[in-house]
Amino acid sequence: MDAVNEGTGPQSYTQNSSYQRGALEAAQEIIKEEIAEKLDIKQLIASDSLNTFRIADLGCATGPNTFLAVQTILEAVQPKLGSQNSQTFPEFQVFFSDLVSNDFNTLFKSLPPQSQRPYFAAGVPGSFHGPLFPKASLHFVHSSCALNWLSQVPKPVAERTSSAWNAGKILYSSREVTEAYSCQFANDMGLFLQARANELVGGGLMALVIPGLPVGILFSETRSALEFELLGSTLMGMANMGLVSKEKVDCFNLPVYFPSLEELKAIIERNREYKIEKMEAISHPKMKTEPKQCISGIKAVFEGIIGKHFGSNVTEELFEQCSIKAAKPSVLLLDTDMPTLHVLLVILKRNGNGNA
Amino acid sequence: MDAVNEGTGPQSYTQNSSYQRGALEAAQEIIKEEIAEKLDIKQLIASDSLNTFRIADLGCATGPNTFLAVQTILEAVQPKLGSQNSQTFPEFQVFFSDLVSNDFNTLFKSLPPQSQRPYFAAGVPGSFHGPLFPKASLHFVHSSCALNWLSQVPKPVAERTSSAWNAGKILYSSREVTEAYSCQFANDMGLFLQARANELVGGGLMALVIPGLPVGILFSETRSALEFELLGSTLMGMANMGLVSKEKVDCFNLPVYFPSLEELKAIIERNREYKIEKMEAISHPKMKTEPKQCISGIKAVFEGIIGKHFGSNVTEELFEQCSIKAAKPSVLLLDTDMPTLHVLLVILKRNGNGNA
Repeated sequence: MDAVNEGTGPQSYTQNSSYQRGALEAAQEIIKEEIAEKLDIKQLIASDSLNTFRIADLGCATGPNTFLAVQTILEAVQPKLGSQNSQTFPEFQVFFSDLVSNDFNTLFKSLPPQSQRPYFAAGVPGSFHGPLFPKASLHFVHSSCALNWLSQVPKPVAERTSSAWNAGKILYSSREVTEAYSCQFANDMGLFLQARANELVGGGLMALVIPGLPVGILFSETRSALEFELLGSTLMGMANMGLVSKEKVDCFNLPVYFPSLEELKAIIERNREYKIEKMEAISHPKMKTEPKQCISGIKAVFEGIIGKHFGSNVTEELFEQCSIKAAKPSVLLLDTDMPTLHVLLVILKRNGNGNA
Repeated sequence: MDAVNEGTGPQSYTQNSSYQRGALEAAQEIIKEEIAEKLDIKQLIASDSLNTFRIADLGCATGPNTFLAVQTILEAVQPKLGSQNSQTFPEFQVFFSDLVSNDFNTLFKSLPPQSQRPYFAAGVPGSFHGPLFPKASLHFVHSSCALNWLSQVPKPVAERTSSAWNAGKILYSSREVTEAYSCQFANDMGLFLQARANELVGGGLMALVIPGLPVGILFSETRSALEFELLGSTLMGMANMGLVSKEKVDCFNLPVYFPSLEELKAIIERNREYKIEKMEAISHPKMKTEPKQCISGIKAVFEGIIGKHFGSNVTEELFEQCSIKAAKPSVLLLDTDMPTLHVLLVILKRNGNGNA
């Protein structure tokens, strides 16, 4: 698994896929198999007076990845319907949901027109940590790379008097801070599961894809931790140079968390409304990513939230300094043997049959 | 009806309501009464395995008016549900729909947060001249001041070789052009009714509010026609002065139409899927609107479509010239006795009982 195709030719990693895309594709394959095996669509549809199969994609963002996931789900669901006549063949309705601040205009503009898409689309604004849909109105819930975002930075981490006060860092590393993050994740995930238990029909499936830890590895041992540490230390360096206030750096923390499979399992089991159908950490052959590319990747995801706190001037300078630092041979980011984050895939079935 | 309160005091027209708002409020009152009398909500809900009452607002735009309409509907529906316990009390889901180009981001940001609103909200992008929702999935459809927008400028009107070629004008006045517009409206309205017949449950209601003609009056006899003629002749004047190309003016027409009640009735009866519960042209005491205000009103609605065709420079100049012209005593706009547009209110019930 360690020998990756070198160069930039058609068979190279460089050209073929990024880490995230590859892992997500592997996850989609498993989701397809699980739908084939575990979803009793005829029974779900029979108990629905609307004859509509309703899918929600939660944390959809603006983009094409979300349409790909929906296509995968439809490709897996449709063959199970067999050869029904067009009068009784169910229709599909897909709800694309994200925070109110999401760019739904862009999302809607990139949707294929109604005549070229086998489903009705709707956008649902709001937080998935609370209710979004009527009771027992969904048959399938999908969420990819969204649940690692916390509803907020854990309170103790931003409190000067707390033992988890995280001055000079932007993500968890010490025991106290990690605990505060883990606690916030458990709380958020619990709220998510509770809200969805209300909205999914009995027998409905939920597929969650969450960036998380490889089995037996701590976050601090991953390449990602190094990348975030580089970002944090560059910020502190800028504070020492007087380019940004030290206080502003001290109270800034990223609201993201990367759970382990065991941690996630314990949270799900606490809820009691779901049966775990599948749970695994999907790895992907390590990619020879250039350190500069890593920083660009982080920039693409976190630029908005960093810019909001520090202003866009500081953010530009920060990422410029970071990618210069990242390219230095002394920096550990060049060590391609370090563990990278895995993709945790969880398939849950809502207890009960038919509508709750 | 002719004596309006003068001045700017608390009882004056100036302070109390604009023409449109007042007429819309009157329409909402009648919608409330019709819901009370004609909607058998218990039966509709009983045949819905979801226990959800689904409302669509079509042509919602971005704004607060749409939330007000939904509130009116909910206020009328809720008392009919009686004292059910919270377990069986239905939930409400409201679909706000408009063209893909609509600003849904602004719409979503102005929604009250989920915890402060008695319904789940979703946005649905697409044209209401085609399918937007699964079969028999809606219990109430509302549309206000949207169906007067045509899906396109009638083709013959923009064809140089056609007898309905509308050179030098921007809306219908001659017989041929009016016929082409009327034909396009009938076609669009037919598609709308057909799509909704598929989506409304049997027994479901539809409330349409459309700006239209007072009984027995032609469009050319209304104050609105004068306003659009002023706009058109100003454009031609600008073409003569070389400020805009004459060709561009010749091929520009506004895609709006103001039907009469009889015309609308004939289109609806052709469909056969609805029972007409109510149909009336609501008038409103005429307002002493300043000519400049009329032009501002037109600008607010049509600036976008005019700017798209002519560019924003031309548009600015056009409205400036127009409001200067409108203020001249010789202009007929000062004649407050001319008929103004009415609001046509139509309440339809989908044939059949329970789900189709």
